[in-house]
Amino acid sequence: MSKRIVIALGGNALGTNLPEQMAAVQITARAIVDLIADGHKVVICHGNGPQVGMIQNAMTELTRSDPEKYIPCPLSVCVAMSQGYIGYDLQNALREEMLNRGINKGAATVLTQVEVDPNDPAFLNPTKPIGSFMTEAEARRMERERDYRVVEDAGRGWRRVVASPEPKAIIEIDTIRSLVNTDHVVVACGGGGIPVFPTGRNHLKGAAAVIDKDFAAAVLAKQLDADMLIILTAVEKVAIHFGRPDQQWLDRLTPEDARRYIEAGEFAPGSMLPKVEAALSFVESKPGRQALITLLEKAREGIEGRTGTRIVS
Amino acid sequence: MSKRIVIALGGNALGTNLPEQMAAVQITARAIVDLIADGHKVVICHGNGPQVGMIQNAMTELTRSDPEKYIPCPLSVCVAMSQGYIGYDLQNALREEMLNRGINKGAATVLTQVEVDPNDPAFLNPTKPIGSFMTEAEARRMERERDYRVVEDAGRGWRRVVASPEPKAIIEIDTIRSLVNTDHVVVACGGGGIPVFPTGRNHLKGAAAVIDKDFAAAVLAKQLDADMLIILTAVEKVAIHFGRPDQQWLDRLTPEDARRYIEAGEFAPGSMLPKVEAALSFVESKPGRQALITLLEKAREGIEGRTGTRIVS
Repeated sequence: MSKRIVIALGGNALGTNLPEQMAAVQITARAIVDLIADGHKVVICHGNGPQVGMIQNAMTELTRSDPEKYIPCPLSVCVAMSQGYIGYDLQNALREEMLNRGINKGAATVLTQVEVDPNDPAFLNPTKPIGSFMTEAEARRMERERDYRVVEDAGRGWRRVVASPEPKAIIEIDTIRSLVNTDHVVVACGGGGIPVFPTGRNHLKGAAAVIDKDFAAAVLAKQLDADMLIILTAVEKVAIHFGRPDQQWLDRLTPEDARRYIEAGEFAPGSMLPKVEAALSFVESKPGRQALITLLEKAREGIEGRTGTRIVS
Repeated sequence: MSKRIVIALGGNALGTNLPEQMAAVQITARAIVDLIADGHKVVICHGNGPQVGMIQNAMTELTRSDPEKYIPCPLSVCVAMSQGYIGYDLQNALREEMLNRGINKGAATVLTQVEVDPNDPAFLNPTKPIGSFMTEAEARRMERERDYRVVEDAGRGWRRVVASPEPKAIIEIDTIRSLVNTDHVVVACGGGGIPVFPTGRNHLKGAAAVIDKDFAAAVLAKQLDADMLIILTAVEKVAIHFGRPDQQWLDRLTPEDARRYIEAGEFAPGSMLPKVEAALSFVESKPGRQALITLLEKAREGIEGRTGTRIVS
């Protein structure tokens, strides 16, 4: 049965530099085109950790090389650049893989902004490190001149930390919907989307933040009225007692169980926890909605119910 | 009467750095939304000279800072990043200006690749300088290690030069068409598009080239079956005997006259010549197609036939 599916793709599916990305997107495209060949409509939301880090470092080096000419580049602009960089390789790999299998569909990247709340408590406590290491003097100057929040990172130097606020809505949702409805494979919300908040009459202001791509994918899936949210990760299934002798892989997880395990601290923050939370928020948003957490190469089997962890009411 | 219009927007409409771009896109959006308010369907193709230069310089500085970790970034990837960077600001300014006027349409950026011919003679004679100045030693090393073509630039240092091949076809044309048909204002072919050529079975390979945005806009206008191509520039009209006492502004230019003036060397290469050539190629591609060359702030009057140079059979 044909499903409308939003896939959240981890950074590991993209590599950490230019040649790695070129190779990685081919493997990714094969797994995703398997789903398209099965008749599903697919929208892909990807991470951008290493890529936006690279771009932010490059823009920092540019400012260092000529501080008169180049002001530091806002993080929102770096995210926009990363969507261009990753989308280009990803849509190309999807196009090629589809053509190789005789599938004649467009593959498109939609530059996507995602609304966040400027009063999100995450802005009071930025925790996500990004960009290059700095000396303490550099870090302190950025703090003074640019209002950066900086932290000393485990003896390796100083780094900027930014907030990771909750995504509220996808600004370009109509664009994405139009393309899904005209049979495109769509890459959207890259890096969790360019974080913006409404200000003034109709202005959107870029926020110095990064949005978790799994949460952005969950919002996208809700707004697109998707049947399924697939969160791809580095393990085939979600486990409880993870890494302990009594570790237990889960085939199925009800919202009640998920909530209970979250309370019990079963899922690691910054790792499996946000994935389970994102899955949960989608599944609970409307009856019939399902989420799947599994490996990229197991996505097809997972949809067929043969592996992965299915989160379902 | 509602027209389908492709607009080629010059770099001067975008500024040369981040704050300039933010301010420039607002003025640009006002002029473009005037046309949308008049009922026209608009697709915008923009230049990226200063922006892709900035990105290429940033990526070069990154490679200099850590040559072990970062390989030089291919030009096609820099163009993709510039589409993200410019599209973000431009689609946002368009969205805001439309909402301020009560126009409820999506504004979308389509990451666009444009096919070029690897046998285009332009590749044998790269002439377009891009990126930072280098020392002769750096330039020679890039020549050896990266197959760059380099030239000494008027005593200011060495620079890389790349080809500016003719655009053949827009890869994402169906995506752009879908969005135009669902009433979006579309930003596409940024920087003339990411130049690619077909290789292998269905692969597209990024080319070390930049495509002239006026020629890309002409190809886009043909493939979209647009009614009008508007090439915005720094003068209100095309002139013959430009800058001489007998200078004469032209209201109307037939293909025959245009060709005659081109032969007579009336239009400066790299400046008005490619604009007139791009206009000509669109106008001659099908009866009824018109082109207009004018200032951004005169576009609306130009469409109404009150100013600008109209190229028409």
